[in-house]
Amino acid sequence: VIPAVEPVDAVAITVAEGELDAKTKPRGSLGRLEALAAQLAGIAAGQPPPVRATVVVAAADHGWGVSAYPAEVTRQMALNFASGGAAVSVLAREVGAELVVVDAGIREPVDHPAVRALRFGPGTADATRGPAMREGDAYRALLAGVELAEELVAHGATAIALGEMGIGNTTSAAALHAALLGADVHAVCGPGTGLDDSGMQRKRETVARALDANRDALDDPLRTLAALGGFEIAFLVGVALGAAAARAVVVLDGFIVGAAALVAARLRPEAIGFMVAAHRSPEPGHALALEALGLRPLLDLELRLGEGTGAVLALPLLRAARAILVEMATFAAAGVTDAGR
Amino acid sequence: VIPAVEPVDAVAITVAEGELDAKTKPRGSLGRLEALAAQLAGIAAGQPPPVRATVVVAAADHGWGVSAYPAEVTRQMALNFASGGAAVSVLAREVGAELVVVDAGIREPVDHPAVRALRFGPGTADATRGPAMREGDAYRALLAGVELAEELVAHGATAIALGEMGIGNTTSAAALHAALLGADVHAVCGPGTGLDDSGMQRKRETVARALDANRDALDDPLRTLAALGGFEIAFLVGVALGAAAARAVVVLDGFIVGAAALVAARLRPEAIGFMVAAHRSPEPGHALALEALGLRPLLDLELRLGEGTGAVLALPLLRAARAILVEMATFAAAGVTDAGR
Repeated sequence: VIPAVEPVDAVAITVAEGELDAKTKPRGSLGRLEALAAQLAGIAAGQPPPVRATVVVAAADHGWGVSAYPAEVTRQMALNFASGGAAVSVLAREVGAELVVVDAGIREPVDHPAVRALRFGPGTADATRGPAMREGDAYRALLAGVELAEELVAHGATAIALGEMGIGNTTSAAALHAALLGADVHAVCGPGTGLDDSGMQRKRETVARALDANRDALDDPLRTLAALGGFEIAFLVGVALGAAAARAVVVLDGFIVGAAALVAARLRPEAIGFMVAAHRSPEPGHALALEALGLRPLLDLELRLGEGTGAVLALPLLRAARAILVEMATFAAAGVTDAGR
Repeated sequence: VIPAVEPVDAVAITVAEGELDAKTKPRGSLGRLEALAAQLAGIAAGQPPPVRATVVVAAADHGWGVSAYPAEVTRQMALNFASGGAAVSVLAREVGAELVVVDAGIREPVDHPAVRALRFGPGTADATRGPAMREGDAYRALLAGVELAEELVAHGATAIALGEMGIGNTTSAAALHAALLGADVHAVCGPGTGLDDSGMQRKRETVARALDANRDALDDPLRTLAALGGFEIAFLVGVALGAAAARAVVVLDGFIVGAAALVAARLRPEAIGFMVAAHRSPEPGHALALEALGLRPLLDLELRLGEGTGAVLALPLLRAARAILVEMATFAAAGVTDAGR
């Protein structure tokens, strides 16, 4: 079953805020780093442990052809992740994060020792003609994500960054945003990895048709996920919930991971407290999701790649936030006059 | 003498941009990270070397009493930097940057093996009554900064982050911004590390009086620096110029380092190409300096501590930018279909 998520520890947050105020700096002068440090304490329910991060990149194919790229690129990129040449591979190495690549439903299975085959189908069905997947498959994908998160935390991960790959999945994410936030199709459809105006128009029409074809399913988060989501998104909903249930930090990436976060938040609202928004995607729908979740992104670097690249880039800030809380001297210990007291 | 600065290598930038376009990602999808990678190539005049960073924190006292903190805190904090308990000490350790603490003119000398005594006076004079320092002292401080940068680069540093400490130095930085940018006193004076409204009013009056008392000196960047600057600011002007002359990356911090960058840019406009703006300070004058320098900050985390903390927090982004340029696979090498070609 979907695990229960305990809320973050409000007392630990208050204690951390007090500790930060005693550090040798004017009150609050490390800005958002201090809020992040306090959140880490709330997640850990005490002094936050070192940030040992794993980035989970889930890949799957989609049943519509709206992208500038052919579907075969999903599989090619999964191999590229596993071989170490993709952006997320390079960045994960650079920041010292473990990378786990999951084939959650690529059209043709990926045969590579570094890719975990947790497949729920050979890509989803075309959601403009009915549900993208059966509700049971969405549930199975979600539970597999929960299980992976539990395994990673059991092996020492304290932060799990979410990433995805799936040609056509900004369309799926747009449909999920529209359905879950009651947003207009125009407000959630952006250029993705590079659509022109006519491509954008096709994308909006595709989303509208998918919403229409599945309108009876949109009263429930899991059925909405099955109707509009990709297997990679369903899997990441589970990773987010499993990580939060195991009190690990959930580091969000951009727009597509945001769709998974919205579903996770509907199923377990307490999970939001475990989420860190790594960066602001230029996709217009992303701001709506962040607002709905009450999250502010740490970075704004105009990243529109996905793969978890934004999430990985934010990991050094998590480590920095923990370090100021755990390692900085207090005014008293350092013999520094505290004029702000 | 003040060293010549060769411009960044435009050909190397173009080559890097071409290389980035061949990497397995949609064109430009890593946003500002790609621009940063190209800048690093321009600075290195070729493939950028690993980012080996040193943060130079220069400390000095000021001849006016406008801060919420007593002047003794400058000295106490220099000891705290050296002992490893300050924010910049913790963050430099966390990101693997070397920390060099310089006493450029604290009232009472700091006796600590990890503090370099490069003193140009026991704090500056009160600039509301005439120049803060003699022009010769400003020049000597600047040249000592150049020398330190040359030494650090000779020992392997490829990036030098600038930091400062000096009770009262946001007032000095505000005066320098007003003088160098022709900006209004209201536009450059902010709360610093925590002034209330009456403190802000005193600060604006102080800046206005300093500008008035030194009005004959403000036609030349070095004389302006001597009239209004602190010893730590003069020293950092030299560090920036020495680093740029030696083709190292110059990582700027917030408002006070911004004043040093403005002076450096007036003396050697080519140095701007070597500068990376690490973060956006909430001090109102900082945006004016960034605009004048044509730089966009990488981070916006509401940091208002100084010490070089923002500069150090940006170093992982420099490393990430280099890594995507040097380590990512091309479409051809990874066998990924390039739809954007």
